[in-house]
Amino acid sequence: MQAVFCENKRLTLCENYPDPIPEPDEALVRVTLAGICATDLEIVKGYVPRFSGVLGHEFVGVVEAAEDKSWIGKRVVASINIGCGSCSYCLHDEPEHCPNRRALGIHNKDGVFAECITLPLRNLLEVPDSISDEQAVFTEPLAAALRIREQVKIRPSQKTAVVGPGRLGLLVAQVLQLAGGEVTVLGRRRESLTLPASWGMATGLTTDFANSSFDLVVEVTGNNAGFKQALRLVRPLGTIVLKSTFSDKNNLDMTKVVVDEIKVVGSRCGPFAPALRLLARNGVHTEPMIDAEYPLADGLAALEHAARPGVLKVFIRP
Amino acid sequence: MQAVFCENKRLTLCENYPDPIPEPDEALVRVTLAGICATDLEIVKGYVPRFSGVLGHEFVGVVEAAEDKSWIGKRVVASINIGCGSCSYCLHDEPEHCPNRRALGIHNKDGVFAECITLPLRNLLEVPDSISDEQAVFTEPLAAALRIREQVKIRPSQKTAVVGPGRLGLLVAQVLQLAGGEVTVLGRRRESLTLPASWGMATGLTTDFANSSFDLVVEVTGNNAGFKQALRLVRPLGTIVLKSTFSDKNNLDMTKVVVDEIKVVGSRCGPFAPALRLLARNGVHTEPMIDAEYPLADGLAALEHAARPGVLKVFIRP
Repeated sequence: MQAVFCENKRLTLCENYPDPIPEPDEALVRVTLAGICATDLEIVKGYVPRFSGVLGHEFVGVVEAAEDKSWIGKRVVASINIGCGSCSYCLHDEPEHCPNRRALGIHNKDGVFAECITLPLRNLLEVPDSISDEQAVFTEPLAAALRIREQVKIRPSQKTAVVGPGRLGLLVAQVLQLAGGEVTVLGRRRESLTLPASWGMATGLTTDFANSSFDLVVEVTGNNAGFKQALRLVRPLGTIVLKSTFSDKNNLDMTKVVVDEIKVVGSRCGPFAPALRLLARNGVHTEPMIDAEYPLADGLAALEHAARPGVLKVFIRP
Repeated sequence: MQAVFCENKRLTLCENYPDPIPEPDEALVRVTLAGICATDLEIVKGYVPRFSGVLGHEFVGVVEAAEDKSWIGKRVVASINIGCGSCSYCLHDEPEHCPNRRALGIHNKDGVFAECITLPLRNLLEVPDSISDEQAVFTEPLAAALRIREQVKIRPSQKTAVVGPGRLGLLVAQVLQLAGGEVTVLGRRRESLTLPASWGMATGLTTDFANSSFDLVVEVTGNNAGFKQALRLVRPLGTIVLKSTFSDKNNLDMTKVVVDEIKVVGSRCGPFAPALRLLARNGVHTEPMIDAEYPLADGLAALEHAARPGVLKVFIRP
C-alpha cells in the first residue's frame, strides 16, 4: 500500500509498504482522511526520540476487518495510545501513561498517513452520522484541548490567556471559552489573530500585555520563548498549562514559580468521547481551520505545506 | 543599637544602627532570639535582588511599645510580609503576594538580627507559654513547610519524597509525615540523613532511587540539580512542589512535565497560627536541628557558620 514513511528524520513516500495484518484484538481500518499536527512535524525534525514507521495519528476511517464482526463497516476514530493492558496506569484507564505504551504514528506503531492501519478494538470510537469526515479528523486534537478541562478548573470570573494561535491553540481557546472562561488569544503576529477575532474572541499581541495580567495561561507555542511569556503573563497564585513541548532547555527562570507560587501543569492527550459529543453538536469551529488537502500520493508536499508559518490544518486523503 | 547590616553583598556589624521608630500601626519589639535561614545566606550571596538593611526574619521577641497597650510585654512571633493593605491580594488575606509588599529582612524592611524591630500589629502572633523561645524561632520556617499542605493533598497511600535534608527540608518531611504521608527523605550525603533516620523516617541517597519512584516530590535543595532529580523521581501524573529557588536557569527539560503530565507547584510562605499550634503540642522535632548559638555581637561568625555544608539551624541572640 501507499504510505508516508519516516526514518531518521527522512521522509519517503512508499508505494509498496507492506499491508498491515491485524493482531487478534485489532481491527483493520481503511483511512478515509488524515490530519497533520505539530507532533508529526516535530518527529520529522527529529525532536521526538527515534521513530521509524508510518507517520500520522489524526484520522477518520472505516473498519474493514475485525474479530467482532459488529464493527465492520463502521466509521471510526481512535485514541492513539496503546497500553500494555496490565500495568497500574492501564488498569486505571490511563494507557497514555503506560511505561510500555505504543503510540499511533509516534512510537512503535505505524500511523495513519497510509491506506490502512491496524488498531486494538478498545481504542476505536464510532463516529455519529452527524459528524463529517472533515470534522472527525479534529477529534484527537480536540480531545487534547479538552484534557485541560479535566485537569484545571475554568472559573467564569477568571482571566485566561491562550498563548499561541496555532492548530491546537485555537481548539484550546474554543474549549476554554465554552467552559465559561474569559479567554484572550495571544500571538506574535496580527495575521494569526484574524481567525479567533472573527469568532468574537478577545485577541492581542503577547508583548502588549502587562506582567501578571492573567489568572490562567495556556502555553501552546511549542517554544521556550512562549513559556517565558507565560511566566511573565501569569499572576501570583495563577496557573500555567503547558500544552506543547520545546527543545530549548536554557534560560528558564523557575524562581518566579516559587516566589509567586505558580502552578505549572503539563497536559497531553485527552478524552475522545466528549470531543465527539462536542463535534456532533457543532460546538467548535473546525472548517475555517482547514488550509489545504492533498492526496496521499502528495503526502510529502502536504507535510511541507503544514510546516509553513501560520498554516493551520492540512489534510491528507488516501 | 547593634545590628547585622547587609548592603551589596557586604555584611557589617553596626554598633550604632539607628533605633527603629514604630509607625502608628506598628509595635516596637525587642528581639529575644533569631534564626538564620537559607534566604539570609542567599541575600548575602546576592541572589535576592538588591537588599540594603538589617538582615533576618526568623525570631521571637517581646513587645516594648504599641498604641494598643494590651500587646505590651507579650512574647510574639510575626509573619514577615507587610502588604499595602488595599490591593486585591491584601483584601483576600494574601499579603505575601501584594505587589507592593515589604518583607522583614528581605525587602524594604529592616530585619531581626538586631536588638529591636518594628512591625505592624496585624503581623504579630502571641506565643503560648508552653512554647520555648528556642521552639518559637522555628515558627516561620514551620509555617513555610505547612504551606505545602495548604496547596496539595497528602494522601496516606501516596509515596512522597523530600529531596534536600536541610533546615527547611527536615521540617517539610515532618509536616508531611504528620499529614499521613509515606515520606522518604533523600540527600546526596549519608551524614545528612542521620537525623531524619533517627526520627524513624525512611531515608536514602537521591541517586539510589529509580525514575518515577514517587507520587509527590518536594524539592528543597536550592539548586538546579535538585529540580532535575525531582523531575526524574516523580511518576507520570505526579506532583513536584518547588520549595526553594535556584539561580542556575539552564538545562531544565520541561518536556517531561508535558509528556508525563506532571504538576509543578511553587510554594513559599505559610500560615503562622497552625505552626504555633504544632509547636505547642510538641508535634515536630526542632531541638536536634539547633547546631549553634552566637551572641548578636558575633552575628557575622554566626552567618559564616550557617553557610557551612550540612549545618542546620544557627541562632543569634541579641
